[in-house]
Amino acid sequence: MIARYSREEMAKIWEPENRFAQMLAVEIAVAETQAALKIIPSAAAQAIRKKGRFSVARIDEIEKTTRHDVIAFVSSVAESVGEHGRYVHYGMTSSDVLDTATSLQVRQAGAVLNQSLDRLLKALRQKMQAHRESLCPGRTHGMHAEPTTFGMKMAGYVAEFGRHRARLEQALKQMAIGKLSGAVGTYSTQPAEVESGVCERLELTPETVATQVIPRDRHAELFFALAMVGAGLERLAVELRHLQRTEVGEVVEDFSPGQKGSSAMPHKKNPISAENLTGAARLLRSYLQAAMENIALWHERDISHSSVERVALPDAFILCDYAVDRMATLVERLFVDTQRMQSNLELSQGHLFSSHALLALVDGGLTREEAYKLVQSHAHRLKNGQSLFESMAADPQVTKLVKKDKLKEIFAGKTHRVAIQQLLKRLDRQLKNSKESP
Amino acid sequence: MIARYSREEMAKIWEPENRFAQMLAVEIAVAETQAALKIIPSAAAQAIRKKGRFSVARIDEIEKTTRHDVIAFVSSVAESVGEHGRYVHYGMTSSDVLDTATSLQVRQAGAVLNQSLDRLLKALRQKMQAHRESLCPGRTHGMHAEPTTFGMKMAGYVAEFGRHRARLEQALKQMAIGKLSGAVGTYSTQPAEVESGVCERLELTPETVATQVIPRDRHAELFFALAMVGAGLERLAVELRHLQRTEVGEVVEDFSPGQKGSSAMPHKKNPISAENLTGAARLLRSYLQAAMENIALWHERDISHSSVERVALPDAFILCDYAVDRMATLVERLFVDTQRMQSNLELSQGHLFSSHALLALVDGGLTREEAYKLVQSHAHRLKNGQSLFESMAADPQVTKLVKKDKLKEIFAGKTHRVAIQQLLKRLDRQLKNSKESP
Amino acid sequence: MIARYSREEMAKIWEPENRFAQMLAVEIAVAETQAALKIIPSAAAQAIRKKGRFSVARIDEIEKTTRHDVIAFVSSVAESVGEHGRYVHYGMTSSDVLDTATSLQVRQAGAVLNQSLDRLLKALRQKMQAHRESLCPGRTHGMHAEPTTFGMKMAGYVAEFGRHRARLEQALKQMAIGKLSGAVGTYSTQPAEVESGVCERLELTPETVATQVIPRDRHAELFFALAMVGAGLERLAVELRHLQRTEVGEVVEDFSPGQKGSSAMPHKKNPISAENLTGAARLLRSYLQAAMENIALWHERDISHSSVERVALPDAFILCDYAVDRMATLVERLFVDTQRMQSNLELSQGHLFSSHALLALVDGGLTREEAYKLVQSHAHRLKNGQSLFESMAADPQVTKLVKKDKLKEIFAGKTHRVAIQQLLKRLDRQLKNSKESP
Amino acid sequence: MIARYSREEMAKIWEPENRFAQMLAVEIAVAETQAALKIIPSAAAQAIRKKGRFSVARIDEIEKTTRHDVIAFVSSVAESVGEHGRYVHYGMTSSDVLDTATSLQVRQAGAVLNQSLDRLLKALRQKMQAHRESLCPGRTHGMHAEPTTFGMKMAGYVAEFGRHRARLEQALKQMAIGKLSGAVGTYSTQPAEVESGVCERLELTPETVATQVIPRDRHAELFFALAMVGAGLERLAVELRHLQRTEVGEVVEDFSPGQKGSSAMPHKKNPISAENLTGAARLLRSYLQAAMENIALWHERDISHSSVERVALPDAFILCDYAVDRMATLVERLFVDTQRMQSNLELSQGHLFSSHALLALVDGGLTREEAYKLVQSHAHRLKNGQSLFESMAADPQVTKLVKKDKLKEIFAGKTHRVAIQQLLKRLDRQLKNSKESP
Repeated sequence: MIARYSREEMAKIWEPENRFAQMLAVEIAVAETQAALKIIPSAAAQAIRKKGRFSVARIDEIEKTTRHDVIAFVSSVAESVGEHGRYVHYGMTSSDVLDTATSLQVRQAGAVLNQSLDRLLKALRQKMQAHRESLCPGRTHGMHAEPTTFGMKMAGYVAEFGRHRARLEQALKQMAIGKLSGAVGTYSTQPAEVESGVCERLELTPETVATQVIPRDRHAELFFALAMVGAGLERLAVELRHLQRTEVGEVVEDFSPGQKGSSAMPHKKNPISAENLTGAARLLRSYLQAAMENIALWHERDISHSSVERVALPDAFILCDYAVDRMATLVERLFVDTQRMQSNLELSQGHLFSSHALLALVDGGLTREEAYKLVQSHAHRLKNGQSLFESMAADPQVTKLVKKDKLKEIFAGKTHRVAIQQLLKRLDRQLKNSKESP
Repeated sequence: MIARYSREEMAKIWEPENRFAQMLAVEIAVAETQAALKIIPSAAAQAIRKKGRFSVARIDEIEKTTRHDVIAFVSSVAESVGEHGRYVHYGMTSSDVLDTATSLQVRQAGAVLNQSLDRLLKALRQKMQAHRESLCPGRTHGMHAEPTTFGMKMAGYVAEFGRHRARLEQALKQMAIGKLSGAVGTYSTQPAEVESGVCERLELTPETVATQVIPRDRHAELFFALAMVGAGLERLAVELRHLQRTEVGEVVEDFSPGQKGSSAMPHKKNPISAENLTGAARLLRSYLQAAMENIALWHERDISHSSVERVALPDAFILCDYAVDRMATLVERLFVDTQRMQSNLELSQGHLFSSHALLALVDGGLTREEAYKLVQSHAHRLKNGQSLFESMAADPQVTKLVKKDKLKEIFAGKTHRVAIQQLLKRLDRQLKNSKESP
Repeated sequence: MIARYSREEMAKIWEPENRFAQMLAVEIAVAETQAALKIIPSAAAQAIRKKGRFSVARIDEIEKTTRHDVIAFVSSVAESVGEHGRYVHYGMTSSDVLDTATSLQVRQAGAVLNQSLDRLLKALRQKMQAHRESLCPGRTHGMHAEPTTFGMKMAGYVAEFGRHRARLEQALKQMAIGKLSGAVGTYSTQPAEVESGVCERLELTPETVATQVIPRDRHAELFFALAMVGAGLERLAVELRHLQRTEVGEVVEDFSPGQKGSSAMPHKKNPISAENLTGAARLLRSYLQAAMENIALWHERDISHSSVERVALPDAFILCDYAVDRMATLVERLFVDTQRMQSNLELSQGHLFSSHALLALVDGGLTREEAYKLVQSHAHRLKNGQSLFESMAADPQVTKLVKKDKLKEIFAGKTHRVAIQQLLKRLDRQLKNSKESP
Repeated sequence: MIARYSREEMAKIWEPENRFAQMLAVEIAVAETQAALKIIPSAAAQAIRKKGRFSVARIDEIEKTTRHDVIAFVSSVAESVGEHGRYVHYGMTSSDVLDTATSLQVRQAGAVLNQSLDRLLKALRQKMQAHRESLCPGRTHGMHAEPTTFGMKMAGYVAEFGRHRARLEQALKQMAIGKLSGAVGTYSTQPAEVESGVCERLELTPETVATQVIPRDRHAELFFALAMVGAGLERLAVELRHLQRTEVGEVVEDFSPGQKGSSAMPHKKNPISAENLTGAARLLRSYLQAAMENIALWHERDISHSSVERVALPDAFILCDYAVDRMATLVERLFVDTQRMQSNLELSQGHLFSSHALLALVDGGLTREEAYKLVQSHAHRLKNGQSLFESMAADPQVTKLVKKDKLKEIFAGKTHRVAIQQLLKRLDRQLKNSKESP
């Protein structure tokens, strides 16, 4: 039922049409390599490249009698090639073409997903830049801890999705494998030179040691990378759901571009997209579990992996791409309510800024311990409704060491804002230099 | 991509056509209950039952503007009802109709799956009866241990699938729940009597305490039951794959009815079905993981469960039903090679029967320890190619206590066969009386 | 590293001392049954019961040479019995005593866990009763939806933990199994009467059809029940963490009995326990995954399940019991800040009560649609700071139909409170009658 | 209950003694960096390095009152330092020292595990070299497919464990992270220079963007790497269990060095170790699931990850290391029964060699299709007990094209052996050059 979630660009990669197209690309590369190695006539290779076609309808028809989809595919292609048709699939085992074609499909799917990820990273960077100084409560245990900025939060996701993207790149790289070593991986029906030639043509790497198939630890790493993208989306989605709570209200999702942010209206929107993406992460994680159980195939291969991969490979890619794309839209359209952030900061009566007040007292000449005690004594004797700033500003012992204006700046978050600005400047450089960035 | 695995009967339950049909059934029951309670006019309820229709195409069309499928569905039905259309969905929250309709779909799906399970249980029982006496090696650690019979093996699966079926029944029962308690489960828009009336009409039980939705621990139990059916199939599939190995050859899958069992031919068949089902079990297990993460929804509900269930609920049911059905066919057509079982029994030169030889010596008057030593002394001094029977039969110390004919019977497995026959007779009764049996 | 989490009562069940004590209980029951069936001398059975002892140190010592813990255990017991020691473990296979003793351990562990669950259920009921009328925002998507009460929330957990407890009971029941059918489950070394006699003595049910072991689907159901208890704890923990957020502040955990609730102080507490329990749920869920993979053992048994169960069975029970016990304490000591609930209700300017205002207008004579439009027109034209109540109370069109006092009651939540009171009364009955309740 | 599986070297890394030692190493590096940056007096840093000690007993004692293990640790160290004790943990948040110290523990654990992996790889390479030519049946679907050699099988595991080792290296590298950015990752209590200075001293990389903690996607990648090592062990364990079956008997585990391989005795050994390791893989896989759920912490951190990691981090490392070490021993002591392999090859009457017979006929002048038909016609008309070789050798049409001696060589596996030899030579180079190799 994954169809519900498919973006066309990704979905078509997993349609039979494209699957067979990739299989044909493998068969053509095989024929041309075999011709170059004088295993089959050049004319045959040329005919296969020029005339080789397939028809999904015809394949379905043939499969009804042969009950073997690779044979049906080969027959369909051979029919189109005519006389030289018998050189199609020459010396090949089904797994040779299936696994190598899957590698090509995975490469295509990876490219589409990477575009979605780049779009998401771009959206995150924009929000990071736009809200470098948008001070808001940092929270641990769901409780106010110290101020941070919304840009700083976004920076964390830029960094994390950089890592997920790097993991995906690595997973795709180790899946860009060709395998044409025959029945049990011993090249008994054609020389290893065919495999290396085909891989060169298709820009793949030959499998180090295959069984009948490409070892499934490679596929598991791919599913892990997809599940990790899901886990990153989940962390971001959970953050955005929290920030959208009625009582928090710091962001609003699905805020259309022309809309004004001041009315009460957008605040009523439910975080539907973020919730949907939280669920997607669960599914992506679950496919990994099945993929890891696929590794321990019996001897040189059983085909228990096949029923898993037929479902989970398309579904995981389609769902992951859908989720990243939807999150990119969500982040692009996210309304960040800096006024609400400001008023939330004041909920704790200035306690959020106590660490910087303490540092200012140390700069003013106290030891850290003296400063700590002084701040604490104010914090503990606040009168009803009084803020920490008001209490400290009224104490000559404090204002002797820290000017009232400076104190005001601290409790307005200015010193935090400046510190985070510097921090993000450093990160700009790091994230720019990083090979992880798109 | 689950479509590949769908049996039509199960697949159609999860099509939009049937999903909306169940939603309509809920809306009709609601209208009739509300009329009985004088909440809406009787004429309205009659009109909704008589004229209420929907069109998937029309719903899709409306959904494009409303972007809410329940509203689109209600509009489509209201259009068909005409004047009284405004009483459709009266006092209802989307979740009320969605969750209650899902319960109806699950009941339908459960009925289809139960039929498949009954077919599998029947096939297992037939093989159990047919091979009550078909002696074969029992194996622990993959090594020959003691003789058992193929019927005894099948009895184990009959018992296990009886348990899985009972778990499924229980899971279905606790999922036969109606929920019409409104936005946060407080019946704020219509009285609890509507819920109980609707549930009576639809043969459901009202939820004890709902939030906006039926609590998702119920759904998790359902996914567990499906995953357990998968786990049972996996154990059976792994058994059959082992028995089909070239070196073991005790069974052959997909043996068509008219075929003769003696030729070498069937032995070349690959255990494709059993392998496919092993993979299916992995997927079924993985959906459970996602379903369990659905339980901890936020407060009175978030909708993160929805993206999981839209995929996993149909996919798990479709795959589970496909797998059970395919296994039923596999068992029905399974060729059991009793000759090969016999020759495998001889691989260990009679050691498999040593426990009964020992018992016979004890019956002949030795203590268990004396008997053990005597059997062991023979086992350890077998000459090349000599069997344990030959060695013992040639020893007057043995034949004085156990007649040679009796000894022959033991090593031909007769005493084991008789013991297992008695055991299966006892099981026949147990399995017959058991409420677990279909 | 589970030791960190062990409550003594549960931990000692999984210590070697108790494990061997349960094995000894099995061996004694075996000897007495065998004596009753005249398989061994009565004097031997009496000697085994009276003198049978073991020493963990001695077992460790013997195991160093035999490298088999069951043999070491049997030797240690036999030594203590003296002359009749050779009748200890008579006719038994290691798995017979191991699996049956595990059933006894599981029963002990289940009893301890059930006590913890009862304590939690009691605490939940108390909070439910105490806060039947404590009105608070019901939330969907993390957004205010409609009012509910804290008692109503608790009622949901009482109902859910009732289901988890029932699942645990069922899981324990189907694990209360004895198995003494020998090497491959064919009773080749002793008659089935020994098994049924032993089971009667130990209050267990004989396995329907065993292999060398009790089938592992039973154990998987047990792990599922433990994981579900974890999932229930997670839902409750997530709820309590949400309610403790700085911006929400409706509850505070770890509020010691004598403490007053009005000061700002408790609000600074972090929801450490609830977070800890959220993590525990993840671990409990993960053990289930491994347990389900244990089901498909090869043929009549391999022992791959053993390394999983040695870790996961004690760890899951110890962690689950710790978590339930800690949650019980958390709930007992939970401070519920009804004042904060009240002020949170006002955050949405009365929108939470709009459904009841609408119903009152219908009672006053409007159609539902007219009433809907009237309420909506007020909701959409609220002036800055104005509440929905103020706007409606100032409209003669409204007050003509609904008296101002009635309106006031509605917006003070009185009608919701009354409705939920009635709802909880109905639930009291249901939960009382339910066999689920402790 | 993981203690059962601990190798001392790995276990002690996770003992409190070492955990606090790593925390002390962090505190010393902090003090020295702070002194270099003139944040604290040089004398203080010197005192902390020279006199800084802790006592687990003293920490436990303090923790009883403070109920905070980091504070207890700091107090214990401060006591030992004396006068300058107040500079211990200066400007630090608990997570700064906890997460950074965990990185150090993980590095230690990784080093131990890598040694075990190297030992396993060495053992696999030795078996690969020793059995380059040990021809045995290659099997797909558990059925004989084409011949391979035991060395070729081992080569597959050398390649796969090379990949797992590379994944582990990568996972360890991205976990070698220091984090000293304070409460919500904004360096509000000490400058970023302290972090970079400490990281330089400890040979760690500063976290790009932290919250209060190091983001948990890093830990998830580590658990994935451990689970993948488990999955590799599982594939190897399943292979070895298959090969040890009574009917296959190609290898025997736990064959002590001095033992002779010809007697029947070793064949009775059960594949206990391989089964135990299969179970270990399930547990390692399950910890990953929990670790991935740890990623989506709330806001700048909640501590739900902590209860998972306290159990799963030590348990997964200890179990993984134990399992790799045990597998290394298993492979080192593995008896490979080449005679049995030879006789198993003959089970299929020469069909395993038909692909090479076909190639020889093509070399002799037939087209591939003619050759295929000729071989097939022989395969299909074998008389009872006749081998494919006998049939073909008796056919002048065959021997005209392929000399009888050549045919004999083919059916004796010589041509396969030669081909695999060449293949392994190529792999030797690849595996030598590969950065994956130890």
